[in-house]
Amino acid sequence: MSGAAEPGADPRLAAAADWFGGLQLRIVAAMEGLEREFGDVDPPREPGRFAIEPWSRTDAGGAPGGGGRMAMLRGRLFEKMGAHCSTVFGAFPPEFAKDIPGAAADPRFWAAGVSVIAHPWSPHVPTVHMNVRLVRTTKLWFGGGADLTPMLDARRVESDPDAVLFHAAMRAACARHPGVADADRFEAWCDEYFFLRHRNERRGIGGIFFDHLNSAGDSDNSAFDADFAFVRDVGDSFIAVYSDIVRRNASQPWSLREREEQCVRRGRYVEFNLLYDRGTIFGLKTGGNIASILSSMPPEARWP
Amino acid sequence: MSGAAEPGADPRLAAAADWFGGLQLRIVAAMEGLEREFGDVDPPREPGRFAIEPWSRTDAGGAPGGGGRMAMLRGRLFEKMGAHCSTVFGAFPPEFAKDIPGAAADPRFWAAGVSVIAHPWSPHVPTVHMNVRLVRTTKLWFGGGADLTPMLDARRVESDPDAVLFHAAMRAACARHPGVADADRFEAWCDEYFFLRHRNERRGIGGIFFDHLNSAGDSDNSAFDADFAFVRDVGDSFIAVYSDIVRRNASQPWSLREREEQCVRRGRYVEFNLLYDRGTIFGLKTGGNIASILSSMPPEARWP
Repeated sequence: MSGAAEPGADPRLAAAADWFGGLQLRIVAAMEGLEREFGDVDPPREPGRFAIEPWSRTDAGGAPGGGGRMAMLRGRLFEKMGAHCSTVFGAFPPEFAKDIPGAAADPRFWAAGVSVIAHPWSPHVPTVHMNVRLVRTTKLWFGGGADLTPMLDARRVESDPDAVLFHAAMRAACARHPGVADADRFEAWCDEYFFLRHRNERRGIGGIFFDHLNSAGDSDNSAFDADFAFVRDVGDSFIAVYSDIVRRNASQPWSLREREEQCVRRGRYVEFNLLYDRGTIFGLKTGGNIASILSSMPPEARWP
Repeated sequence: MSGAAEPGADPRLAAAADWFGGLQLRIVAAMEGLEREFGDVDPPREPGRFAIEPWSRTDAGGAPGGGGRMAMLRGRLFEKMGAHCSTVFGAFPPEFAKDIPGAAADPRFWAAGVSVIAHPWSPHVPTVHMNVRLVRTTKLWFGGGADLTPMLDARRVESDPDAVLFHAAMRAACARHPGVADADRFEAWCDEYFFLRHRNERRGIGGIFFDHLNSAGDSDNSAFDADFAFVRDVGDSFIAVYSDIVRRNASQPWSLREREEQCVRRGRYVEFNLLYDRGTIFGLKTGGNIASILSSMPPEARWP
């Protein structure tokens, strides 16, 4: 490999990191736009703005380890939303290196990505999660996906307009990249990953999930450009379809009973994140940035 | 061993299971008494009563596996409280048997116990957890403990009267059973167990925790009576000291700011239960009774 430890040697990594940083800012702009647009939902509040906070990490042994930008919104449409980007590098501790592709013999890594989670006030507006990332060890791959979690049982069905729109947008993104993305496989992967085994229930209504995406299959991924184009499409499609879904639901009035149902559903979200989500557990157990890792937790949850 | 699979052969197991069942009912009576006593905290509500629900389990292969009594209270003093007893038996699945003392060669087990968790409405009344249990494999041991979690930062200190009372009661229970209970060791064990590593903070102010208690050290525990007497003392001391702590705090008015602080603290309780608590994770991953296992989750929690 040209190198996990020498990312500067591969301009493709810098290009991806730049694009991720831009994606974060476009998400910030789009969501702040929605905050301004829906003044009628809760007029006494000002439209929410993201608080953007840079952070840096130190790798094992005190070496520089990169960092990122945390962006948190607490607004009138979104009760809590995080949209983070990061570019980190260093060496995995031996106990983790063995489980990461291409890191067993050489634990050095470089990784960049964007991660978004939105918890709207209204029970009618679904919670959404999106993540795109590029990881470099002696192997090189993209990963990510986007999935939708409607809050009310009556709307957690495939025939609901939100589910139809979301699946159509993610399938379309896959269809535009034949040979790279397989919609059926990525949808099944999403359903399998976002599943609460102890309750035998799905977290949401699905979407797409993919990992270790390297269409060429070689260590330098000669199909990088095609894979990156798909990942960019996922990010762009996410902004468009989620904005559309928010607009379709944000003005609908809601009752306290619906709020209660939303808070119970959010409890299931907490259960998933702490019991199953690999990123959360990995981050917490390896001394990651607690504020950033747990920013995905809902502002209020109930187990009545 | 006379046998995990033939508990009837050992009258001591039946005696412990009977005592656990009685302890549950005495806890129910004591807490319902507090609900009646503190009508002033929220007059429009009726004093809460426990809903008691028997459940049974099936062991692997469809064999009878015992069961228990779930008791849940949703009252005016206690927003949510669970006080459960169970007596279960069967054979551990091979992947768990290897990690359980005395079960590697013979996976049969019998276990009985009581588990209590209280989430009061008032931020001034601490959350409490108590568990006592007896486990039979080819070995035989008691386990359990009790720990207190004050909700407000200002009261999460060793000098607070609630902490002083709670520690004194648990230390006294240990002191009455020399040769069985070591207060210093059981307190240190509690502090070590109820610790959120990812936040580098204690869950509460401690208490006592003990496991694999078998003072004789032989497979039939010839010191069973002495160990059981200590465990009974823990259960009885818990009822007395927690009732006292509730009475000292229940009438104090609280603000919305204090309620918010309580809900944030409860979020840490959720993090502990889902990330670290062996009983919770073991139960969820082995198809236990979800309703009973997750009844410890707070009714409302916040991650603002």
